[in-house]
Amino acid sequence: MIDKRSFQIEFQPLGLRDQFPAGISLLDCARQAGFDLVSLCGGKGTCGRCKIQIVSGNVSELLQNEKDTLSAEELAKKYRLACQVYAESDLVVNVPAESLSAPQRLQVEGVEPVVALDPIIQGYTVSLSAPSLSDPRGDDERLFEALERQHGVICKSIDEEVLQSLSRSLRSLNWNISVTIRNTEIVSVDPVESRRLGMAVDLGTTKIAGYLVDLETAKTLSATGIMNPQISYGEDVVARLTRAQMSPQDASTLQAKSLEALATLSIELCQEADGARPDEIKEIVVAGNTAMHHLLLRLPVEQLIKAPHVPSVSQAIDIKARSVGLSVAPGAYVHLLPNIAGFVGGDHLAMLLAIKAWEAEAPLMAIDIGTNTEISLVMRGEITSVSCASGPAFEGAHISNGMRAAPGAIDHLLLADQQIQYHTIHGSKPAGICGSGIFDALAQLVLNGVIDQNGRMQGGHPRVRENKTGREFVIVSEEERNGGSAITITQEDVRELQLAKAAIRTGITVLLKEKELSDSDIDQVVVAGAFGSYLDISSAITVGMLPAIPLSRFRQVGNAAGMGAKAVLISKTARETVQKVAREIRYIELAVAPDFNKTFMQAISLR
Amino acid sequence: MIDKRSFQIEFQPLGLRDQFPAGISLLDCARQAGFDLVSLCGGKGTCGRCKIQIVSGNVSELLQNEKDTLSAEELAKKYRLACQVYAESDLVVNVPAESLSAPQRLQVEGVEPVVALDPIIQGYTVSLSAPSLSDPRGDDERLFEALERQHGVICKSIDEEVLQSLSRSLRSLNWNISVTIRNTEIVSVDPVESRRLGMAVDLGTTKIAGYLVDLETAKTLSATGIMNPQISYGEDVVARLTRAQMSPQDASTLQAKSLEALATLSIELCQEADGARPDEIKEIVVAGNTAMHHLLLRLPVEQLIKAPHVPSVSQAIDIKARSVGLSVAPGAYVHLLPNIAGFVGGDHLAMLLAIKAWEAEAPLMAIDIGTNTEISLVMRGEITSVSCASGPAFEGAHISNGMRAAPGAIDHLLLADQQIQYHTIHGSKPAGICGSGIFDALAQLVLNGVIDQNGRMQGGHPRVRENKTGREFVIVSEEERNGGSAITITQEDVRELQLAKAAIRTGITVLLKEKELSDSDIDQVVVAGAFGSYLDISSAITVGMLPAIPLSRFRQVGNAAGMGAKAVLISKTARETVQKVAREIRYIELAVAPDFNKTFMQAISLR
Repeated sequence: MIDKRSFQIEFQPLGLRDQFPAGISLLDCARQAGFDLVSLCGGKGTCGRCKIQIVSGNVSELLQNEKDTLSAEELAKKYRLACQVYAESDLVVNVPAESLSAPQRLQVEGVEPVVALDPIIQGYTVSLSAPSLSDPRGDDERLFEALERQHGVICKSIDEEVLQSLSRSLRSLNWNISVTIRNTEIVSVDPVESRRLGMAVDLGTTKIAGYLVDLETAKTLSATGIMNPQISYGEDVVARLTRAQMSPQDASTLQAKSLEALATLSIELCQEADGARPDEIKEIVVAGNTAMHHLLLRLPVEQLIKAPHVPSVSQAIDIKARSVGLSVAPGAYVHLLPNIAGFVGGDHLAMLLAIKAWEAEAPLMAIDIGTNTEISLVMRGEITSVSCASGPAFEGAHISNGMRAAPGAIDHLLLADQQIQYHTIHGSKPAGICGSGIFDALAQLVLNGVIDQNGRMQGGHPRVRENKTGREFVIVSEEERNGGSAITITQEDVRELQLAKAAIRTGITVLLKEKELSDSDIDQVVVAGAFGSYLDISSAITVGMLPAIPLSRFRQVGNAAGMGAKAVLISKTARETVQKVAREIRYIELAVAPDFNKTFMQAISLR
Repeated sequence: MIDKRSFQIEFQPLGLRDQFPAGISLLDCARQAGFDLVSLCGGKGTCGRCKIQIVSGNVSELLQNEKDTLSAEELAKKYRLACQVYAESDLVVNVPAESLSAPQRLQVEGVEPVVALDPIIQGYTVSLSAPSLSDPRGDDERLFEALERQHGVICKSIDEEVLQSLSRSLRSLNWNISVTIRNTEIVSVDPVESRRLGMAVDLGTTKIAGYLVDLETAKTLSATGIMNPQISYGEDVVARLTRAQMSPQDASTLQAKSLEALATLSIELCQEADGARPDEIKEIVVAGNTAMHHLLLRLPVEQLIKAPHVPSVSQAIDIKARSVGLSVAPGAYVHLLPNIAGFVGGDHLAMLLAIKAWEAEAPLMAIDIGTNTEISLVMRGEITSVSCASGPAFEGAHISNGMRAAPGAIDHLLLADQQIQYHTIHGSKPAGICGSGIFDALAQLVLNGVIDQNGRMQGGHPRVRENKTGREFVIVSEEERNGGSAITITQEDVRELQLAKAAIRTGITVLLKEKELSDSDIDQVVVAGAFGSYLDISSAITVGMLPAIPLSRFRQVGNAAGMGAKAVLISKTARETVQKVAREIRYIELAVAPDFNKTFMQAISLR
């Protein structure tokens, strides 16, 4: 009897979803979906390299060779071998990075600001005299006194965990030590040859970038990116916040996932930097949006979800790394950048810092495009910010053949003479279309008259056809995919994109109106973030998302939030500046801006 | 067959040890030893009131009625019913306070200093405006701003745990709250009617005294004392420190025991103060000797045990109560007074504070008598301190019939016309002799010529007899105890007491010599501590422990350390003074004092 069932399978963190017939292994489903898992044994279930994790849904029974290959911990976490497992219902599947044959695109580079080395932690080499019957002072007192006498440094306290081991450390190191001080607190006591490192993290909703910095030289020793493991628990911030609000257990899981990611980063960054050890990390700086910030600290989120979207915490805060289970230097802190509003967080501030926004005299517009888009208008040192609910279309979600910027994603596209040319990430076979590709497609369809100004798809073009719900434009046909399903842009996709780009355009317009400026007054537009780096600015202008000003006025700065986090790690002055700026920024709630609805309706139109 | 074995059984925290024949229940052993356990059923094993805990040694098998009566947790902790259990080897038995028919003497009262109410925590009632779309500031920012505007108070941080619940608290309390601030940190957010209480603790080696204070009125709401549950793990500080050093597990147990005691105190104090709740406790102050301090914080102790006896931590420290598992207000701190030296701790400083020692112009001698005796000489604001290893004789240990100040202990004694008169605590039948009784006995024996100046016991007195190891003086004979063993002072006891009192006298002499003073120059002698309160000063002068100056120059101030801890709780100024004084005190190590050996040898003589 032939199994005629078929199931919807969602592969995360790739953001790929499709319908697959029953009876084919998840390894084959992945291939059909257009991406490859590592498979050294060719699907025999022996190499154990095609590990995937079943997040939800029912699958076929666990086989003996899977039990042999996977660890007890992996089995408990529902890891399976993709080549041995079959869907028995709709599934959500998590694909660990190490199982992917080609890595995802994880941008860590960005335009780096020049900041002077002046970290919040300072190190001193100290030689103490050993105690004697005529000098039996306490070990803490002895250390304080030596620091003051030898370096003129006045300390007031010692971290509790450092205290626990201080007496033993002093003796085992023969009274010659390296002391790390943060403000007036001793946070680490080490051998004199020990290094003082710091980790900066851009905690994004989708991607997390980490940087390991030598705080004695300001040199970046390593940089790496990982997917945010919270993705399997909700693609966008609202989904995750809602889960956290509904269930304390989910809130704990979400927190654990982000902490796990920070721990992974600290280990990977150390591995990449020859011989670095996590316990040499004396300070961590995290820049994230308000939601990521709150989930990381397991702060209440109910008031963040509901209007007026109030952060529980907006000031910068410092917590002990160990209080959230991070194994770095004993007394190390995690510094979280301040938040500006419920949907404008520390990552936006970090970006503004990285581009030194507040130094701009002529109007500067700084845009962080994402599921939520934050925009700031800077003019003569005054900063006004808005947040736009641009939605997950740029991440490929809610788009028929959308996917994240993973191998096989069409990221650029040109339509000329009814001929289509596209580029995929890593040159792989096309699997779907990611944000920048979607934007190019939209722009090309507009330019070729396939879509009118209102977004209506016209018939007549050879690549336009009718589907069940309306028209669609075929980018890669079934034949071109050897019988796989076609990659198309549907009328519904166009509507989704119009809403997304209108949200951003509305934000820009509201900010300009508020300062009585017009598009042409903008001296500079800074586009930040991974999506913003790959976005074709011309396409974005064509569809009316970005202002139609000369391309020379645009700057794509890459992961500026990460660079800003690094600046905050390296420089106490930068840290203080961010906190000062955070208090001065004026936040405008778009929903209550004058003429919001009218502005939005106008912004929907394509040019 | 008759069981002819006999076993040594030690009852703690009473400090009673004796030899008992096999085959009699521990309930009967207790009676023979001279104290009563609660026994409503008369030893049938049904009322469950004579609970005791087997700390070490082997006992008879657990019976069904014990399984029925004791909880699983109690069984796991080796609790048994005293009426049902028999010794099978030498034992150490812990007698919980609730099983004793008469309570132990636990002094909590003392001479209370007058300090102005000025606690480190301050409370403010704040009314906030609810957030709106046009005012969506973060909850933390809103609170900071209101505190500054309504009370002129500038806060800088909010305790992490308070932050976790801040957003919910503000909303559930309808934006009207009571805020507790410590320095510049918000440590608690409560309903406006909530109280601000504090707990002061004198963490003694043997006894722990606690005080619950209303920090808005400085009124003491309740006071209580409990035995230090560490006793079963070592009677004196050196025994406990050695255990902690030898085994990390024992160090953890010792820490857990003292934390357990603090938790018990907080609950009992609240029960005694009508309607008080532990979460209303916003600050805890602990004064203890250096060993108790280190064991409480699980600090390393190796350097404390070995010469030159160096404290790991000597400065005052503040730790979050929750970081050591105490359930009080979420952000409450435990403040530990500074230590002066390895064997002069925060309890001595608290005592000096309570008697306002540093205000003395004429020479003042402040003495804390205990297993370790701390003495300070104060003169024109200068304080010099020594520590004397007086040993546990005053607690009744190492004395043949010694015991702690529990019911049945002979605490005062008079020998006249060969007739002996004694007083027991609670007027119970005599069970042994406690510190003050031992001192009286020694003095009386000296005055009656039974002991010569060198401490040699003379024959000829009708109450003096020979025992296996030498002479002994019979206080209560076998006949007077109806066949129980006699209560005596042996020649060995006298030697033990001579060493103890010589240690103290040496400390006094060294301090005086150092300032070129003689006994008669002392303007005032303050004797603190429980033992010091019951000590007959005349007896102490008679045996040459205290200087022979007019009795009017002596002051017995009771539990001054507890009073000092309370002062530090009530007054920030007092707290700062203690820290300042701690840095200024000069500590002299007796072992390296000039002529130490000669001084000690002279001090051994009885007048």
